[in-house]
Amino acid sequence: MPSSSRSARSLSTAVLLAAASGLSIPAAARPQTESLTERYRVVAGRLIGAALTDDVGWEKLTHLTTVIGHRLSGSAPLEEAIRWAGETMRAEGLENVTLQPVMVPHWVRGAEHARVVAPVERRLSILGLGNSVGTPSGGIEAPVVVVGSFEELEALGRAAVEGRIVLFAVEWEGYGRTVRFRSGGASAAARLGAVAALVRSATGNSLYTPHTGAMNYADDAPRIPAAAVTVEDAAWMRRMAEAGEQVTVRLHMEAEMLADAESANVIAEIRGSELPDEVVVMGGHYDSWDVGQGAHDDGAACMAAWQALTLIKQLGLRPRRTLRVVLWTNEENGLRGGNGYRDAIGDAVGDHVAAIEMDGGNERPVGFGVTAGDEEEAVARLAQIGRLLEGIEAGEVTAGGGGADIGPLMQDGVPGLALRTVGDHYFDWHHTNADTIDKIAKVDFQKAVAMLAVMGYALADMPERLGRIGPQP
Amino acid sequence: MPSSSRSARSLSTAVLLAAASGLSIPAAARPQTESLTERYRVVAGRLIGAALTDDVGWEKLTHLTTVIGHRLSGSAPLEEAIRWAGETMRAEGLENVTLQPVMVPHWVRGAEHARVVAPVERRLSILGLGNSVGTPSGGIEAPVVVVGSFEELEALGRAAVEGRIVLFAVEWEGYGRTVRFRSGGASAAARLGAVAALVRSATGNSLYTPHTGAMNYADDAPRIPAAAVTVEDAAWMRRMAEAGEQVTVRLHMEAEMLADAESANVIAEIRGSELPDEVVVMGGHYDSWDVGQGAHDDGAACMAAWQALTLIKQLGLRPRRTLRVVLWTNEENGLRGGNGYRDAIGDAVGDHVAAIEMDGGNERPVGFGVTAGDEEEAVARLAQIGRLLEGIEAGEVTAGGGGADIGPLMQDGVPGLALRTVGDHYFDWHHTNADTIDKIAKVDFQKAVAMLAVMGYALADMPERLGRIGPQP
Repeated sequence: MPSSSRSARSLSTAVLLAAASGLSIPAAARPQTESLTERYRVVAGRLIGAALTDDVGWEKLTHLTTVIGHRLSGSAPLEEAIRWAGETMRAEGLENVTLQPVMVPHWVRGAEHARVVAPVERRLSILGLGNSVGTPSGGIEAPVVVVGSFEELEALGRAAVEGRIVLFAVEWEGYGRTVRFRSGGASAAARLGAVAALVRSATGNSLYTPHTGAMNYADDAPRIPAAAVTVEDAAWMRRMAEAGEQVTVRLHMEAEMLADAESANVIAEIRGSELPDEVVVMGGHYDSWDVGQGAHDDGAACMAAWQALTLIKQLGLRPRRTLRVVLWTNEENGLRGGNGYRDAIGDAVGDHVAAIEMDGGNERPVGFGVTAGDEEEAVARLAQIGRLLEGIEAGEVTAGGGGADIGPLMQDGVPGLALRTVGDHYFDWHHTNADTIDKIAKVDFQKAVAMLAVMGYALADMPERLGRIGPQP
Repeated sequence: MPSSSRSARSLSTAVLLAAASGLSIPAAARPQTESLTERYRVVAGRLIGAALTDDVGWEKLTHLTTVIGHRLSGSAPLEEAIRWAGETMRAEGLENVTLQPVMVPHWVRGAEHARVVAPVERRLSILGLGNSVGTPSGGIEAPVVVVGSFEELEALGRAAVEGRIVLFAVEWEGYGRTVRFRSGGASAAARLGAVAALVRSATGNSLYTPHTGAMNYADDAPRIPAAAVTVEDAAWMRRMAEAGEQVTVRLHMEAEMLADAESANVIAEIRGSELPDEVVVMGGHYDSWDVGQGAHDDGAACMAAWQALTLIKQLGLRPRRTLRVVLWTNEENGLRGGNGYRDAIGDAVGDHVAAIEMDGGNERPVGFGVTAGDEEEAVARLAQIGRLLEGIEAGEVTAGGGGADIGPLMQDGVPGLALRTVGDHYFDWHHTNADTIDKIAKVDFQKAVAMLAVMGYALADMPERLGRIGPQP
């Protein structure tokens, strides 16, 4: 902290008394120059203390991940999770609990398996990519062509690719750069006559672990099946090609896209005491891929936002504006939940004061990123709240925030925040069978609850709204 | 380095000239008080330089892991690896290349799969444990009883265990303590009437990765099938039990033990110039489990020891004693190679001066551990050689060394060394499909070649033998 901010920390007698008694501070007692740090010190202390001593949030996360399990759009577990959350929220006395109907894509994986059939015979661990078509019922057997980039694929040309399975054995250059092969690899290969596409899993660290995720078909290419292979098998097929050995693979996938299914965003709130039509929304996406437990991605965020609201309610706190939690459906393969929420609120988007999304896993949280109209001013203002989270080492506030589900709100000007974590291992677990609750430290989850409670409350209560994001060029 | 050792580092003119010319130092030029550091400085420099600029060793490791693949005792790839090594060693001009016949156990995994069938339906990733029997052809379906220790199993008693599948969802307390559940869990469960045993994989870090390894049946218990589950699924079944949910699993394994198969230890050497009957032996085990590529465990060690000998040969160096490389067969499930080698040399074990085993993976190497008659003296003496490996950050010499394959030699008094590595991730990969060459940095492999070349040469050449290990109490 710069020393210039120290004067703001001197406490008035009224503040000290209020802190000692646990009471909120009468507005009249607040100095005109009061910082947000002082304004929310007592409330933040109560919320942080409650979050760090709370077991119920963790029990909810345990139930969601362990008993309900993964939650792909259109699946029974997702609908069970939605029903359970709605009922439990009502029982907790949260306000205006709503299951907002959304139709979602209904992709099913079905049985799938792959084998190397030459020059050796062994199983390949695969995960079909979300949205992929299946193979013909007899499967596909073809020689594998290994490429390291789209450019290399183009350079090979149709003669080398036609009738073959293209493997994108690409380098890991971070998720953003590497995921384009998962998204667009199949259509690029299909344009040159490939019969299927395999993609190295989008991760920097593997223990023979395939990673699924969404792919998309271009309109101008045949729809061929696409699956992820492990880092190990991608490296092996590349080395075999370098050694002059032709690998042949047999691929069997029963994946198919069914008709859209009914689903819902789960919504609960605490109505604002002074400006109930102004809304701060926070949450994560409730759906996951159909592997693991959707623990880091994004179950922990959903349970943390929900429990943050519950603790605020149980402490008898009510911010000036409405604080709303949304558990968005169908982020992974459609974003229908985020878009549906935006559509449903219509012009009320103008009264959405801020949106917080947590969708980077629940490794050790470090703070918030923010995107707003005057970003420098917003960072400085929220840093005053961040200071109250320094005791849980989660007070960093930086420029640049948002998330997929709140993207539609941000496009219409709503300032967006992301809860940020240390991010050391998130992409090791992302979209795999290893995304399970045993990878989450309870204390990290409790910190996320505290952070969302403090930041959500402060955003919903603070005197001035953040500057809205300007029109996109 | 303590300052007291600095005087030993002052170089005579003869040494400097020899170093500059690359010639070995005439014995007459050596001072009487010469340390081993001075004695082997020039040779070590040539060996380290050769190893760090060598590609052939890495190409051998690539061929072994990528083209040949994993090498379970009794399998065709192990025999192919043995044939290839023998032929290539002869072509390189290594001396007395021998395929020493050894009969080995021949366990085959066969098809295997497991599913949770209640209260949800999903696949469990398993690896049957080595030596396990299979299930009846229809498989085994039974409720799972979760225990965290042998004591907990005993406390449950027959009424709770009979007819059930016992899951050892134990804590990771390091390999040595945790592996006993893999080894003995099935018989402990079978004594109480269990129909199968599942064991949490022996690792501290998992990305939904099952780890195989040997298990053993006690004579006083029925032989029931045993398989490893992932850390994630063990944790999940434990949490389900805590939540009051009864998990039922269907297990199908076609594993069986066939008649012993022919195999061989691969042996090559450079005969000693003065004391050819005295032998320093070094190597690793050539067999692996039937998953991954046996890269860290223990292919890299075999290729490193072999390439060390090859580089010594190519540099025209010949130590006073014989330096021998052995690629032992069947360490993983029988130790027939190590025992067979010991039996074959008979009384010549008395002329075995030292044995070096590398079997802790090829992560970043840090030095050697040694067990000898006067261990303190041995550590001090070998530390003089270790100093020459400080330039590759692999010069630590510590008390305590050995290895499974050289265990029979050490039992008869042969001083034993282990090449030690940093050991951060070895047990993440150990006995899994993730034990592949992409987990090995080429430079770490080259360092292992350098270390074995320098230590092997020095042990085979130094004036006095290490003290033999005394009779075991």
